Amino acid sequence: MIIVKPKFTMLCDENFTVLEDTAVAFDERIQAVGEAEELCKRYPNARFFEYPDAVLAPAFINPHVHLEFSANKTSLVYGDFLEWLSSVIASRGALSQAANDAVIASAIKTMQRSGVASFGAVSSFGGDLEACANCGGRVVFFNEILGTNEAALEQSLANFTARFEASQKRKNSLFTPAVSVHSPYSTHPDLAAAALNLARERELIVSTHFMESEHEKSWLEQGAGGFKEWLGKFNPAARPLYTPSSFIAMFAGIRTLFTHCVWADDFSGFDPGLHSLTHCAVSNRLLSKRTLNLRAALDARASVNIGTDGLSSNMSLNFLDELRANLLIHAEFDPLELAKILLLASTKNAASALNLDAGETKEGKLADLALYGGFADADAAQLPLMLILHAKGCERLFVGGAEVNLND
Amino acid sequence: MIIVKPKFTMLCDENFTVLEDTAVAFDERIQAVGEAEELCKRYPNARFFEYPDAVLAPAFINPHVHLEFSANKTSLVYGDFLEWLSSVIASRGALSQAANDAVIASAIKTMQRSGVASFGAVSSFGGDLEACANCGGRVVFFNEILGTNEAALEQSLANFTARFEASQKRKNSLFTPAVSVHSPYSTHPDLAAAALNLARERELIVSTHFMESEHEKSWLEQGAGGFKEWLGKFNPAARPLYTPSSFIAMFAGIRTLFTHCVWADDFSGFDPGLHSLTHCAVSNRLLSKRTLNLRAALDARASVNIGTDGLSSNMSLNFLDELRANLLIHAEFDPLELAKILLLASTKNAASALNLDAGETKEGKLADLALYGGFADADAAQLPLMLILHAKGCERLFVGGAEVNLND
Repeated sequence: MIIVKPKFTMLCDENFTVLEDTAVAFDERIQAVGEAEELCKRYPNARFFEYPDAVLAPAFINPHVHLEFSANKTSLVYGDFLEWLSSVIASRGALSQAANDAVIASAIKTMQRSGVASFGAVSSFGGDLEACANCGGRVVFFNEILGTNEAALEQSLANFTARFEASQKRKNSLFTPAVSVHSPYSTHPDLAAAALNLARERELIVSTHFMESEHEKSWLEQGAGGFKEWLGKFNPAARPLYTPSSFIAMFAGIRTLFTHCVWADDFSGFDPGLHSLTHCAVSNRLLSKRTLNLRAALDARASVNIGTDGLSSNMSLNFLDELRANLLIHAEFDPLELAKILLLASTKNAASALNLDAGETKEGKLADLALYGGFADADAAQLPLMLILHAKGCERLFVGGAEVNLND
Repeated sequence: MIIVKPKFTMLCDENFTVLEDTAVAFDERIQAVGEAEELCKRYPNARFFEYPDAVLAPAFINPHVHLEFSANKTSLVYGDFLEWLSSVIASRGALSQAANDAVIASAIKTMQRSGVASFGAVSSFGGDLEACANCGGRVVFFNEILGTNEAALEQSLANFTARFEASQKRKNSLFTPAVSVHSPYSTHPDLAAAALNLARERELIVSTHFMESEHEKSWLEQGAGGFKEWLGKFNPAARPLYTPSSFIAMFAGIRTLFTHCVWADDFSGFDPGLHSLTHCAVSNRLLSKRTLNLRAALDARASVNIGTDGLSSNMSLNFLDELRANLLIHAEFDPLELAKILLLASTKNAASALNLDAGETKEGKLADLALYGGFADADAAQLPLMLILHAKGCERLFVGGAEVNLND
């Protein structure tokens, strides 16, 4: 048992309660939140730590990261989604090869140093399996399926199945195999159906990319736009495989994270209980020519969470950098109001999206907690904003009560 | 004489030329840009450095920073300009006292580590004079004048004059005394006139804050809004001292930086030859509820430069952080196009605004140069964007050919 008494404890409950000079006792799960002296009496064998300048908060959950692209820095072209996609295809081989276990482990460490206990790894090739399974963090491992070439569907499915089975072998309390259906422009309905049936049978979480570019919107809605030319290079008879609503309908009854949705104007098609929107603000800035209409999504009561995406479309996997970027990008919000929205999106709401019993500082929840120093003089009312503005990384990170080594 | 041969040389000329495998020879000024072997022959006694992974660029110019607020981290309230101003007034004493020479020197070092050779220090009290005069960088020192209390005008002017004279004593090739007229809501026309007459007589550069909040706009245009109540607390008979255009007219014939202008809708009143707009994007996000209409300003052929403002309204004085923030905030621009605009704004255009013979990698210009590593694999065409996305700091910084020590 560990008892931590920080200056501030963020509960990340609905009301965004911030407690002062309160302690939290935890082993794998949070056992109590209360007065330090009382907790020390109740758990006399607990190790006790006091941090008079620190914030203790539910650790962040980054539901969308492509770790297999962690070797990218300056190889790809930004500004337009299809130009970027062409540059990805041109560099994919070299980037995948460069993203060895050490590179991926280092990328994961960057996330962990920024307070991320749990992440959703979208895995195209399985090249990130080892590093994810051994990282000490909580991982939802999204094995990705894609392919539209009818002659190769069987092969695509076999490839996916082999990767999925390999990930199944690593399943444990920290590592959860899952499914990613790449996107409506890249995944044949037969493949999507096969993967989604697997998800239904085994109660797997699913991730998908949706409405990331105007090209995608024009393609799905009208069979027109940049994808017509782009896909036409591979198959001159290419036609949209879904409408936006027929694509969403495939995910009925399945806990699914729809990533991007920046070109979606209508959020009413999502199931508010099972579906969530993953927002990758920096990635969208570089590729999508538009950001998520966050106000409209919240007004539609969509559950929103915050992802970094991969280093293929971001310069940082430090989750605090992503939160700061969100604060700058969504300038129509009052900064303090937005800070609370972002912190809840990255803890409580993301836990629900990934079906994790974490994301709140609350008795019974998994003890996924992060501690951020440097806030001795902060005011509790301003703390959500000050944390996002000023925290560069966490001092300590606990995942299920076990401390993660943040050093190299 | 020093010769540097980087991988890339950014000229920061009108066409945003990026040279590859070219060398630059400089002493106090840039003597030649050309082939390394040829330059080594021409200057046989020069020290030669080769950086196969680096970008050499004109050092940045940060024309607007309030160093006297460098001790702030979590003391102030963001979201609304007048709430912030109240929190500044409440904390000003403590923050000023905490901002000793060491704190200010450290803040300057942060700027220098991010490639800033020159900065405009807006000095309210003169508390930053020593640190600025000794920093090794190029400084335009804006002695600020303000006050609307008619009974205290003489005292305000005497105070300003004393600070100005103290700064005059430090004048040298790196340190230029200058004038700041605080703002149209805070500076009596008699004080503004006195300071501006001094500027005309001595050919001083002037900085002023303008149209930072909607409150200011309502006050100047209609004598209404938040400032009516706020100023009314000090003087129930308070009335606007200027209209927007009468304020700008005071600066006719004077090289002036108008900082913020986020609530200005019309940029036609500025003198395109002498007046420039200083944009502090992060500060505006925290205080102003609006950002600069950058497209409209550029379309109006206004000269725009980029400032960090002080740590009273920013979390970082790293100039690269500010450029990244601009890239995220001005999302209506293509990222690569915007990167070029921002880099020119921060070099060539800012040099013109501060009347410095620097800001370009060009024969005859002052050798204010910065070197950024980590770009061995970059593509010249994408380099402006990649530099802003990925550079965390510079490896070497030269001011007038003299290297600045970037260590503590």
